[in-house]
Amino acid sequence: MSNRPADTALIGQPGSRAQIPTPAAVLDLDAFERNIAKMAARAKAAGLALRPHSKSHKTSAIAHRQIEAGAVGICCAKLAEAEAMAAAGVDAILVTSPIAGAGQAERAAALAQTVADFRIVVDHSDGAAELGAAAQSPIQVLIDVDPGMGRTGVHDAAQAVEVFHTIAAQPNLTFLGVQCYGGHWQHIAGANARAAAVADGMAYLTSVIAALRAAGAKIGVVTGGGTGSFAADAAQGVLTEVQPGSYPFMDRDYREALQDDPDGAFEQSLVIATTVITANHPDWVTVDGGLKAFSTDGPLPVPLTPKFSASTYGYFGDEHGRLRRPDGALVARGERVDFAPGHIDPTLDRYDIIHMVRGDVLVEIAPVEARGASQ
Amino acid sequence: MSNRPADTALIGQPGSRAQIPTPAAVLDLDAFERNIAKMAARAKAAGLALRPHSKSHKTSAIAHRQIEAGAVGICCAKLAEAEAMAAAGVDAILVTSPIAGAGQAERAAALAQTVADFRIVVDHSDGAAELGAAAQSPIQVLIDVDPGMGRTGVHDAAQAVEVFHTIAAQPNLTFLGVQCYGGHWQHIAGANARAAAVADGMAYLTSVIAALRAAGAKIGVVTGGGTGSFAADAAQGVLTEVQPGSYPFMDRDYREALQDDPDGAFEQSLVIATTVITANHPDWVTVDGGLKAFSTDGPLPVPLTPKFSASTYGYFGDEHGRLRRPDGALVARGERVDFAPGHIDPTLDRYDIIHMVRGDVLVEIAPVEARGASQ
Repeated sequence: MSNRPADTALIGQPGSRAQIPTPAAVLDLDAFERNIAKMAARAKAAGLALRPHSKSHKTSAIAHRQIEAGAVGICCAKLAEAEAMAAAGVDAILVTSPIAGAGQAERAAALAQTVADFRIVVDHSDGAAELGAAAQSPIQVLIDVDPGMGRTGVHDAAQAVEVFHTIAAQPNLTFLGVQCYGGHWQHIAGANARAAAVADGMAYLTSVIAALRAAGAKIGVVTGGGTGSFAADAAQGVLTEVQPGSYPFMDRDYREALQDDPDGAFEQSLVIATTVITANHPDWVTVDGGLKAFSTDGPLPVPLTPKFSASTYGYFGDEHGRLRRPDGALVARGERVDFAPGHIDPTLDRYDIIHMVRGDVLVEIAPVEARGASQ
Repeated sequence: MSNRPADTALIGQPGSRAQIPTPAAVLDLDAFERNIAKMAARAKAAGLALRPHSKSHKTSAIAHRQIEAGAVGICCAKLAEAEAMAAAGVDAILVTSPIAGAGQAERAAALAQTVADFRIVVDHSDGAAELGAAAQSPIQVLIDVDPGMGRTGVHDAAQAVEVFHTIAAQPNLTFLGVQCYGGHWQHIAGANARAAAVADGMAYLTSVIAALRAAGAKIGVVTGGGTGSFAADAAQGVLTEVQPGSYPFMDRDYREALQDDPDGAFEQSLVIATTVITANHPDWVTVDGGLKAFSTDGPLPVPLTPKFSASTYGYFGDEHGRLRRPDGALVARGERVDFAPGHIDPTLDRYDIIHMVRGDVLVEIAPVEARGASQ
């Protein structure tokens, strides 16, 4: 919808960054590439397979760059996200949420036939049975283990063993290992506090793995972890594969949690660009980004454009934002203001395209193919 | 992205509503049609032109139904929204936000050449001059008057007169009248409190109109108002045209503000359908709708499915929600739960399609053409 011809005509033009219609998701490719290389190097040094999570970016142009930099594949949160990524040529995908119902199982089975290396988690015997019944060819599955968050995953070791037996009884299911993702660990402030939470979780996971092994399971893959817990995950040595999502971009939420910890050593590469459309009020100006331009679950967006670095932003309805005037500086209609989003995943999920820039030049427009693909 | 072939195959099938892939925006057409007819009748009885705001629905299938029911056209918040609606055949559009810059003015000028009855607001002399310079043919403009909210609009009567003189000096601008929208009035609880706020605002607007008339302006159109302020707007008699947006759907935000007031006499017709994907935890179940399925600026979504009517919902990350188990009832993977969204506009802006149902049958899939079109 937003990828109008006018946008494409800007590509390569000097100063074109300032002409992008706003609100827009604008990616600084230089910073982004440094982030991609940094995480690839961290995973390699730790001996961990890197499988970045596409729920953060929803964009095949980014998935392909991550794989080129050494990732073994990507994670997808939902089947529709995996379908969109598969359609864009991504051929190694792990679906990280359990699914429910025959219709969903049939969609997973179809993906297993078209994606070279397709994997999906299950967290209930009924789910394993549904998947086995739908399978047209072998489907690789992992057991999702709840780390105590209670969101998804088997509830304890006994259920893990029960699900394993169901998987083993299905001729077309191939058991690969386990997933354990502690979403609640990622944003704990302080490297030591995060490490302690991860250590507890990994001790529990080790006990579940032991129970599975005692039941005859061969655990080839142990996948989990995120941008915030990487250092702790690497130190614990339980995971074989990490699935961070936000590190290509960063956001205010992670920045505030991770501060100067090693896990926080990524650059703010993706901004939401806005334009001042009204400057009639003496105390503030109105920009064209509001509740539809940002996620609102995290901290407020913060202005990155230097002139407005001390200006607070507030939502001003669905379509607009209110930005305090900077001390002693005039602001005119048409000025541009970039913001660091509070929480990147639900923010980028509002955009159909990413405008990729180098310096002040728009160099590429990437479709966010899996935007809205939460089904 | 979400409009996969599987969805289309469900149309007309008995029980198909329960097969729609979730999370999904599901519209009860019977309730929706009653809402459309009710607002059309209220406007007609009050002698007000009805120009519903498409920022709430972003969907031409709904705009066309509103116009068939008697609306004179629609409002659009942004140029991109207007471009999407124009491409879908809507030929009477008012853009209700001011724009800034030559590029935006050129897009408005292009719309004025393709939309039979195109109108746009201005709130600064520079904006009027930009629009006049870009015009290839006459463009109909209204002056946006700030009702004291400070979001958009001229700041006072003196600025209104200044902008009017600029408009009058542009050969290709045709002055139609004024817009005055009090977004801050819409959600005031209590009909009397809303009426008092609207009365103050309309008294101020009357003074601005008087100043414009004294400067030689002919005020043919006075447009404004929303779903919450309709009764007060009609009572004041200053507006000639109302621009409500949320009334086709309702949401929890409006429901709580309007209660049993006449303005609240619309039905909750649009729900977000979800599915239980994990039921392993003793205290709650996990549904597949989280931060990407709802707006999070308003009150929390509330479950409408009777079994869960006493269950509280909480966001459980980007992709999931946590729903308390109902007392004494078993819940299984695969069960469906419908929710009333907290704030409809930014919620529906997350969906590519509306699944329209009658009873338990999916009868139509309408594209949300202007979703994300906030530029």
